[in-house]
Formats: sequence, structure tokens, C-alpha cells
Amino acid sequence: MKTVVISNIKRTDADLVKRLGALGTATVHEAYGRIGLMKPYLRPVWTGGEAAGTAVTVLAHPGDNWMIHVAVEQCKPGDILVVGCSTDNTDGMFGDLLATSLMARGVTGLIIDAGARDAKSLREMGFPVWSRAISAKGTVKATLGAVNVSVVCAGVNVMPGDAVIADDDGVVVVSRKDAADVVAKGEKRFADEDGKRKRLAAGELGLDMYNMREALAKAGLVYVDEPAED
Amino acid sequence: MKTVVISNIKRTDADLVKRLGALGTATVHEAYGRIGLMKPYLRPVWTGGEAAGTAVTVLAHPGDNWMIHVAVEQCKPGDILVVGCSTDNTDGMFGDLLATSLMARGVTGLIIDAGARDAKSLREMGFPVWSRAISAKGTVKATLGAVNVSVVCAGVNVMPGDAVIADDDGVVVVSRKDAADVVAKGEKRFADEDGKRKRLAAGELGLDMYNMREALAKAGLVYVDEPAED
Amino acid sequence: MKTVVISNIKRTDADLVKRLGALGTATVHEAYGRIGLMKPYLRPVWTGGEAAGTAVTVLAHPGDNWMIHVAVEQCKPGDILVVGCSTDNTDGMFGDLLATSLMARGVTGLIIDAGARDAKSLREMGFPVWSRAISAKGTVKATLGAVNVSVVCAGVNVMPGDAVIADDDGVVVVSRKDAADVVAKGEKRFADEDGKRKRLAAGELGLDMYNMREALAKAGLVYVDEPAED
Amino acid sequence: MKTVVISNIKRTDADLVKRLGALGTATVHEAYGRIGLMKPYLRPVWTGGEAAGTAVTVLAHPGDNWMIHVAVEQCKPGDILVVGCSTDNTDGMFGDLLATSLMARGVTGLIIDAGARDAKSLREMGFPVWSRAISAKGTVKATLGAVNVSVVCAGVNVMPGDAVIADDDGVVVVSRKDAADVVAKGEKRFADEDGKRKRLAAGELGLDMYNMREALAKAGLVYVDEPAED
Amino acid sequence: MKTVVISNIKRTDADLVKRLGALGTATVHEAYGRIGLMKPYLRPVWTGGEAAGTAVTVLAHPGDNWMIHVAVEQCKPGDILVVGCSTDNTDGMFGDLLATSLMARGVTGLIIDAGARDAKSLREMGFPVWSRAISAKGTVKATLGAVNVSVVCAGVNVMPGDAVIADDDGVVVVSRKDAADVVAKGEKRFADEDGKRKRLAAGELGLDMYNMREALAKAGLVYVDEPAED
Amino acid sequence: MKTVVISNIKRTDADLVKRLGALGTATVHEAYGRIGLMKPYLRPVWTGGEAAGTAVTVLAHPGDNWMIHVAVEQCKPGDILVVGCSTDNTDGMFGDLLATSLMARGVTGLIIDAGARDAKSLREMGFPVWSRAISAKGTVKATLGAVNVSVVCAGVNVMPGDAVIADDDGVVVVSRKDAADVVAKGEKRFADEDGKRKRLAAGELGLDMYNMREALAKAGLVYVDEPAED
Repeated sequence: MKTVVISNIKRTDADLVKRLGALGTATVHEAYGRIGLMKPYLRPVWTGGEAAGTAVTVLAHPGDNWMIHVAVEQCKPGDILVVGCSTDNTDGMFGDLLATSLMARGVTGLIIDAGARDAKSLREMGFPVWSRAISAKGTVKATLGAVNVSVVCAGVNVMPGDAVIADDDGVVVVSRKDAADVVAKGEKRFADEDGKRKRLAAGELGLDMYNMREALAKAGLVYVDEPAED
Repeated sequence: MKTVVISNIKRTDADLVKRLGALGTATVHEAYGRIGLMKPYLRPVWTGGEAAGTAVTVLAHPGDNWMIHVAVEQCKPGDILVVGCSTDNTDGMFGDLLATSLMARGVTGLIIDAGARDAKSLREMGFPVWSRAISAKGTVKATLGAVNVSVVCAGVNVMPGDAVIADDDGVVVVSRKDAADVVAKGEKRFADEDGKRKRLAAGELGLDMYNMREALAKAGLVYVDEPAED
Repeated sequence: MKTVVISNIKRTDADLVKRLGALGTATVHEAYGRIGLMKPYLRPVWTGGEAAGTAVTVLAHPGDNWMIHVAVEQCKPGDILVVGCSTDNTDGMFGDLLATSLMARGVTGLIIDAGARDAKSLREMGFPVWSRAISAKGTVKATLGAVNVSVVCAGVNVMPGDAVIADDDGVVVVSRKDAADVVAKGEKRFADEDGKRKRLAAGELGLDMYNMREALAKAGLVYVDEPAED
Repeated sequence: MKTVVISNIKRTDADLVKRLGALGTATVHEAYGRIGLMKPYLRPVWTGGEAAGTAVTVLAHPGDNWMIHVAVEQCKPGDILVVGCSTDNTDGMFGDLLATSLMARGVTGLIIDAGARDAKSLREMGFPVWSRAISAKGTVKATLGAVNVSVVCAGVNVMPGDAVIADDDGVVVVSRKDAADVVAKGEKRFADEDGKRKRLAAGELGLDMYNMREALAKAGLVYVDEPAED
Repeated sequence: MKTVVISNIKRTDADLVKRLGALGTATVHEAYGRIGLMKPYLRPVWTGGEAAGTAVTVLAHPGDNWMIHVAVEQCKPGDILVVGCSTDNTDGMFGDLLATSLMARGVTGLIIDAGARDAKSLREMGFPVWSRAISAKGTVKATLGAVNVSVVCAGVNVMPGDAVIADDDGVVVVSRKDAADVVAKGEKRFADEDGKRKRLAAGELGLDMYNMREALAKAGLVYVDEPAED
Repeated sequence: MKTVVISNIKRTDADLVKRLGALGTATVHEAYGRIGLMKPYLRPVWTGGEAAGTAVTVLAHPGDNWMIHVAVEQCKPGDILVVGCSTDNTDGMFGDLLATSLMARGVTGLIIDAGARDAKSLREMGFPVWSRAISAKGTVKATLGAVNVSVVCAGVNVMPGDAVIADDDGVVVVSRKDAADVVAKGEKRFADEDGKRKRLAAGELGLDMYNMREALAKAGLVYVDEPAED
């Protein structure tokens, strides 16, 4: 591994990030052609938090959070910290002290493919964290990793500067170059959904609203008007 | 697989379902001779929800929620939708639009052996969902499954029309034919528990209240009045 | 296995337990040289609970909670019940009736390497439980285990009388003989943390506060002032 | 649960079972419309074994193999023993003594949603076992279950007398009533596969042999004749 | 953690270890009252290996095998190396170079609650290893652990000098003080098993050989001589 | 997702790939600075197989192997097929017919972050496959993915044309641009290892051969010449 810190990265436009955040992960993921979503084992440390930001990436080693300390310095307001780990690990690499430091720099949240601790404090501070575990397990500061290289985090390859959106449904990553396109498609999708919601609430069936009946019949679906065997 | 929709099923009596719901999963499961409980990886999307209903069953495929749309039409007030999947899958097959549609039809909840999304909206709508994951992962509508056939969901074989009870402790399924018997046993059990709770709160030991001492001694339990080695 | 109940154990000093509880799991674990922490699959049944106590230990078998009933009698005010299981199991070995009984005896919480049920009631009662699952699955009372022998629970060997501290970050165990030393180190650590928190909140970097720069350079960390490839 | 032994079951025709076994699990599963396959966590204790038989079913409890002893008596030549468990459990419920007993009765194999032990002996005896774990963990004989009731095993509902086929690819169950139909479809499929294999070995593409090109184009697949960005 | 190497440990008598090894894990575990068995996620790197030895214990950290190098020096002929890890980790902490070194010192095998690599070489060398994963993942040498302190490995607390027996069924640990007693009980059990095997092979039922019928009837088992519903 | 097939990719030099293959995964991974290794849940379908090749990449959907059929046409002699999936899935997307087709084209192996089937035939054909599961579960051909785009497979981002090396220890990926450098470092490392092996076999300690004693002492390691407490 190159044990390097890249200190000058290109970031997704802040307005685009904000608009992606307003759409939420599910809509962004759909608008992106159903890619970019991290694996669902990543869960919010506390429910109801939301975050959108430009990725500062970290490659850390199991049981070692040295690189997170290094990465803090690279963060600017509007960033979100994304930590991948070189192997599966649940140690509590991140807690309220690091959160204090990130908040002081205007960072919007943390995505970590490892553990976090100080869950209660993070909730009280309102600093949103998505992690694969909550664990008090302490870490060392002994082995170099890298900051702002491409990192695989929870199954998604993240480039520094990518837009990252996170909420109760998970975490989605949009490449910097694709952000404008995804915003456009997502906002259209979002506008359409409200109309659909009203029609469904009024009792219209999705089968009719989406015109599924013909395709279902063509695929061979059969309706049988008799009870299951008793 | 028969790609079929059975549109006329026999349902468990509504009054029995209501009474089972009032008992809660733990009591129903015990009254049923400790069977019918789904595996505990199925968790509520939001805490505190409760649901009881008659099962409309769906067999879906991984990454495909087409059959859920088909199943909505088969639902009547008091039903609960139960979705099994032909393989382990955590994709977000169900979200707030489908929930809106089900609520419009009087469905009481969703049990899905896959993922759900729009967790925040589901909580705000008060529509209870038990799933194996929360995931924004989108799905296609490409492959037929079946509606109202018997389906294995989280380790339990569910027949259409079975009574399904769900709360923070999990999900339990009672066969239509057994519902009356389970209600009777469960209500008796429930009545007994209150008395036990008061006696235990007053300091009486379960060892005495349940008359366990003789059986323990017979099984060979020995009491040693000395500290563990230092 | 010796099917034995040891009824007279040496307990960690109550004042030390109280002070460990005030420090919380993360600080205690660090002060203890980063040992004693149970695996993070053990999670609180409800968020926000905290418990500290002296361990009464149980070795139970899968699907069988007989020994928990036996252990209740051995509990004194200030104890915490720690249940290990002879194999991985998620059955609901513990519910609100047992919690009622433990509360009547002044027990501060339950740590169980198996499942718990009656999650809603436990939350309402304010009785804190850490378990590997929430499950309504009922259990039998058929096979002897042991009470107050050493037990491995969630990866940690627990001796009767050890101090056990639990909160949202997990569960940590401190040997009776080490408790005074850990309290001393933990309270020092705790005092230091507050100062650090203020400095970080004011914008000081951990890199500087912890004097990491020299060690990082010595380890070979390189800073590159150019963007990642486009 | 009904603690019952049903001693007189209807079995799938022996010739059909034999022919299903000759087809193997993958072909049978496909011919059955892609249902009936147990979850892939069930693995053979030793590689290369194959078994086909009519199901004698057992519902056992975690850590308890009493019902397996009861079930042996119900087995006839050509049967295969299928053991479900009331909760997830990996204890070694089955070993070489039980295998000796089953072989003496002409049983063709064991499918168990729990653990097995004596792996080396089972391999040397040539008795094929599919289990979720290999574990020396011993079990008690304390709690009743049932024999020859319907049982969910590794995600599939098995009725006594069903045809069960197992090999290195897993375990598939065919309902007694569907066996003749699945044999017919499977044998046709099997005959077709050999011709396909020869054509593919000769270099013909599946894209052409299966006429996929049109459907791919219609679905929107685009071919781009340029290298990925460098 | 005390970062210590204890260099002079008491070992279980070599003859007892040899006799335990001859019994195998299943018999030893049963003779020990069904305790001492490591969790079944620990699997042999190659099938068919067997090992028995006196434990030299290591506490290592995730991604760091420094302490294994330290431990080699503490090993004597007849020892078996047991490596616990301070958190769940699958990195390849052990490979053919360390195996070469251990074989040169007469060590009989390795038990590691982490990963191993060079699987092919280990098989060819005939050095038996039980691990939780096979992984080429490299490790650092940066953080101190301990050698010959008590270590929890795969759910069992191991003291230096304990007898450790491993084969295809798993790994079992016998306390030094209990070894003689377990040998005696295990050899008796082993002698009995051969007779049972012959009777079962001759067609006698376990129900009769173990006199289970009365206990089953007393527990309420009912035999029903009718087929399952059709 | 772009549903695209990129048909003209740049491949790692064949000689470099061959030399990487000769080094094996552990050495390549170390020489690459300990990166590029796929997660260890990816296991060989049969033991002892080895493969090295240039990646043709596939992004498939759960339960759907359509894109694998498309990818076959893009393969040239010396390629290795790498299949990522848009969500966790164990379905048997690949079997002996596809293997026949790939062998006819000179493909050296398959890496699939999903399931494979026909395990016995694959072993007999000598076609090496690394998968996350063995499963007979059949798949559909309904949803487009992509061929020769960058794909995350088992935690590693793979670019088309990258060198992929696989053996019993797992799967490692080397970027095309880094291949020459890794070959050089790996071959040096390989040469060194043989000398080390001989010295260790002769009884020299790693502590001395690697000069660890000073660093250990500096880190604070203490040797205590007394037995553990009895």
C-alpha cells in the first residue's frame, strides 16, 4: 500500500451534494441506476440522523485508528469522513473525541467499515455515524494506512471527493462526475413519487398505476379462484 | 414453482386473531407448545410496533418485488402480508409507497424475509414492518413468483390465512385450525402470569413458586458453601 | 461439568464497582489495558440503559433456563447476573418475570450470551439487559448447569464476584483483584479527557495534541499535494 | 408442539426416488421449477457422497438428540433421515453410533439442520451426512419433539415420505405427489444438457446456442469498442 | 493487558495427553461432562489431521502476529500452540515459515482464533492447524500481547499447560488438574462404545439398548399409527 | 448502472501474470504492500486448484446469471472471469456448462462473489472456481448488468485487465500498472523465503533471524520466570 496522504482533492460541487442529501439514499440509489449503495450491515449508531458530504477517505488497519487522526486535518466544512479497513474488523476506532474534532472542522458525518464507540455521546452531540458495529474496543496507533486514496468501504469503491449520502436506510456514494446527472434524475423521480403516493393512498392499485397486468399475463401469471387445500 | 395467484383463501376468524394479538408473541408461542416462531434475525424496522392479522403470502425472488405488487390486490382489511424469498436476500423490496397502498386496504403490517426501506417514513406512518434488514437497495420487476401458496418465511411454513402475531419480540404464526385452541390456552396462561408477577415482585423465589427444588436435587444439583478459589 | 451452585462468593468492593460504573465501558476497558471487553454482538435490549454490579455467574444449556431460576436465589443487592451458554444459542431464556424477581432482589442488570424476550416490558420496567438476540423462543427446565463457577460469556472469562460494567457501548469485566487499580487509572484518564475534548472543540488537531507528527514521519508517511487522478 | 410419532407414512415410489437421485440436485431443482432446495449452509460432512431416499422427519430441540433415537425405529430401507431443529443449533446431535444403526436399517443418509460429529468415521463408513456444522458438542436426551410431522429443515418444508436428493451441490426435496412429474422433466433436461455440453466444448457460444442476442439488445445492452479509461 | 511472557509453566503429564489424544475430541468432551469444547467455527486447515499437546498460549491483536514469534521460543516438544485474539479477526497470522519453526521444536499443532495461510504447504508438511479462516492476509509486528497467560480461544478459557486435543471434529481443552480423571472416564467410555457399535450394527435399536422406552412414555410420547394427511 | 459491454480492454502482460501466478497469493499480496486481497469468505470449490489470469469483469444481479453468458464472448486465452454481484447472493450462477464454454476459450478460472454449482463436475474437469458458496440454486436471465466495467468483488475493486492470482489461500488482484513492480518485489521475497525456511528448520528462532529482541524489549515486553498461578 502507498502510505500516503493526498492533501488536495477535487470535491463534488456543494450545491449538488446538498440536493442529493435532500433526496435521501433510496431515491439517489434508484436515480443512479441502482448502484453505489453500501452493504446493509452498515447501520446508523443512532436512528434519525442524516448526512451528506464530500468524501475524505481513509484506509485503516484492524485495531488501529492512527490514520483517522491524520485524516482530520484534511477535512473541510461539508466533508464526510469515509473509513475503509484492510480486513473485517469491529473495533471502536472512533469515539466522541474524534467526533468533537470533526465537528469543529465542519464535517457532516462518519462512515466507517469498522466499529464506533461512545454511542450515547455521539447521539447527544448529534454527530451522525454509520458503522458495522458499536464497540468499546480500544485501538492502537501503530501502522500507516492512507488518506484520500480510493477505498472500498462496505462493498463500494469510494474516490476522494465523491458525494456520500446517508440516512436510516443506509449509505450511497455518487461519483463526482455523475452527481449532476443523478441530481436531475433523482429530483424528477422525487416529484413523481408524491403523485403516486396520493393515488395509492386513494386506493388505486400499483398493478394499474404501473400498468403491470399485461406484462404479468405475458410472463405466465395465472389467477386461480379457489382456496388452498384445507 | 407454480406461478400462480390463489385469490380466494380461508382466513382465521377475525376475533381469534384479535385475541391472539392481545396476548403477544411470547405468550402465543408458549401456548402453541413452543412452535410457530420465526427466526430472531427478523427484527422490527421501528421499535414498539405491534401487528396481528391473517396471512396473505408471497413467494418472491432475490432483488425482485414484482409479486408484492400482485399481492396487494389480494389483501383485505385485517390481513398481514408475509413475504418469503427463494434465497437469502436483503434488498429493499418494500418501502413507503407499498406501505401506503397496503394501509389503504386495511392491512395491519408486513413480515418480509428480505429487506425493507424508507425506514423513517414507515415509522412516521406507523406502518409496522418486520424484516431481516433495512436497505435502500432497489429491486426489479422481472420474475414471477406466487401469491397465497404455502411459503417458508424465516424458518416457519406459513399457509395463507394463518394468524400472524408480531411485536418487539418477533413474529409467531398460528395455523388457522389451531387458533381457537391457542387462544384458550394463551388466555389462561396470561391470567396466571399476573399473579406470578406479583408474587415474584414481593420477593418470592421462582424456585419455590414453581416447586423446582425437588427436581433439581433429584437431577443432582449440589450446593457448596465455599468461595471459588481465590 | 460440575453441576454445582457455589453459594458464598467473594465480591468486588461496592464502592469500586460504583466508580467503575461512573467511568463507563470505554474508559474502563482502556484503563484495563484494553482487555475484558465482551464481543460486540452483545447488545442492549433497549438503548440508554447502564448497569454496574458484581457478577453472579450462570452456565446454562441451549434452550434451557433452569439454572437462571437457581441463580436468582444467590443474588444480593448490587449484583449483576452473567449467563454463559454451553453452545451458541439465541433462545429467549429471560423475560419480564425473571426481571421482576431480580429487581426484587436488588440486581442491577443481566448479561446473557443467549436471547431475551419481553423486550417492551423490560424497557418499561427499566431493567437493563444485554443479550445476543431478542427472541420470544421459549425454553425448557431440564438440564443442570452451574452457578458461580467461572464462565466464558461473549468471549470473556468471568469469575463470580468480578465487576461488570455495561452501557450502550457494550460490556466490560474487571477482575476483583484488579478493580482498585483500574479505578485509579480510569479516573485519571477520565479527568484528562475533558481537557482534551475542550482543546479539540476549539479546533486543535489531535495530530498536534498527541504529538503524532514525528512518529508518522518516522514511520514513512508522505504528504502529496496533488489531486487524485481524474 | 404435538409430541407424537407417526408410524405409518406414505412414501414416494422407490423407482422415482432412484431416478431423481441419478439426476442430481441441480437438475432436480431446475426441473422442479427452481424450488425445494435447502439453504447452502447445509454442507456434506465429506465430499463426494450422494444420497437419495424417502424422508423420515424429526423435529428436535437444541442440544437434544432424543428424537433421533426414536426416529431410527421408524426407518425402512431406502429412507433418508431429515432432522429439523426448533432453533438454530450446531451441536453434534449425530455420530458414528447412530450412523451404524441407520446403516443397519438400510437408511441412505442424514440431513440435519444442526451439527454432526465423528466426521472421520462417517467418511470411513461411507455414510453420507449433510449438516450445518461439524461439532463434537454432546447432547442430552431430555425433551420430546416429534417424528414424521412436517418439518422446516434449512428453509424447506419437508413432509414425511417426500423424496430427498443430496450431493456436493446441496439438498433438494420433492413432494411425493410431484415426484413423477419432476422425474419426467428432469430426465428430458438431462438428455438435452449433454448435447449442449458438446456444442459449448466445440466453441459455440451460449449467446448463440440459447438465442440470447435479440433479448439482450431489446433489454438495452450496448457494446462499446473502446478500452476502459486508463 | 500485562505484556508479559511467562517462561516456566506447569504442563499436563505427557502420558495423559497422549491417552487423551487417542480418545479423540468427542469422547474427551463427553468424558469431561460436555465442557471444554471450542466453538465449531474453528476448522482444520486440512482434513484428517490430529494433534494432542500441552498448551503454550498467546494473546495476539488483530492483524499482528508478533507474539506468535515470541511464543515459539517458549515451546517444547509435545506442546501445542494456542492463539487467542483480542478481537474477531481472520488475518493470516500463521504460515509455513512459522510451521517450520514449530516443527523444529517438536510442537504438535496450532490452534488459532484467527486466520492461517499457506494452506497447501501446511498440508504437504503434515503440520495440523485449526483456524477460523484460511486467508493470505499479511500481518504486522507492532503491538505487544502476552505469552502463557490465560486466553479465551474460540469460547474456551485456556490456561498454559492445559491438555489440548484436536481432530476433524474440533478442539477440546482439558484442565491440567482434570486430565487424569478425564482419561479414566474417557477410556471407560471408549471401551463401552465398541460393544454398542456391534449391537447397533446387528440391528438392535438404541431405544432398547439405552432403555429409553419407559422414559419416553413417561415424558408423554405418543405413537400414532396413521399416515400424515394427504 | 450503465448496462454496457466494453469489448476491447487493456490486459496485463501475459508473462507478468504467469510470474505472479508462480509466486502464489500470499507472496503477491505481501509484495503488493498487503493490499489487493479479496475477503476470505471466497473459497475454492475444490482444494488444490490454482489460477492466474487477466480479469474480464462482470457485474451481475442476485439470482441472475445473464451477464456471465454475455461475458464469455469477451474472454480470450489467459483471461480469468471475475463476477461481482450488486448485492450479497449465494445462488449457483455458474456450473459445468459455463465452465465447458470458458475452457473452450482458454479461460484459466472463475472468481465469483456468489454461488457456484456442479461442484463435482468442476473438480473432475479441473476448472478452478473460487466462490462464496456452493449451491444448486438456479438463476434467471432477466436483468442487464455490465461486462468489463470496474467491479467490487469480495471487497476488492477490480478493473478489467488486472492480474488475478488465486490458490488455496484466496484471491489477490494486482493492478495492470503495478504488475511489473509487484513481480520484482515478489520474486525477491520468494528467493529470501527459502533461505529463511532452512534456517528455521535447523532450529534458529525467528526472534533472532528477524532481530526482534531489541524492538520487543523497547516496546516493553517482560519475561517472567515463574509458573502461572496454580
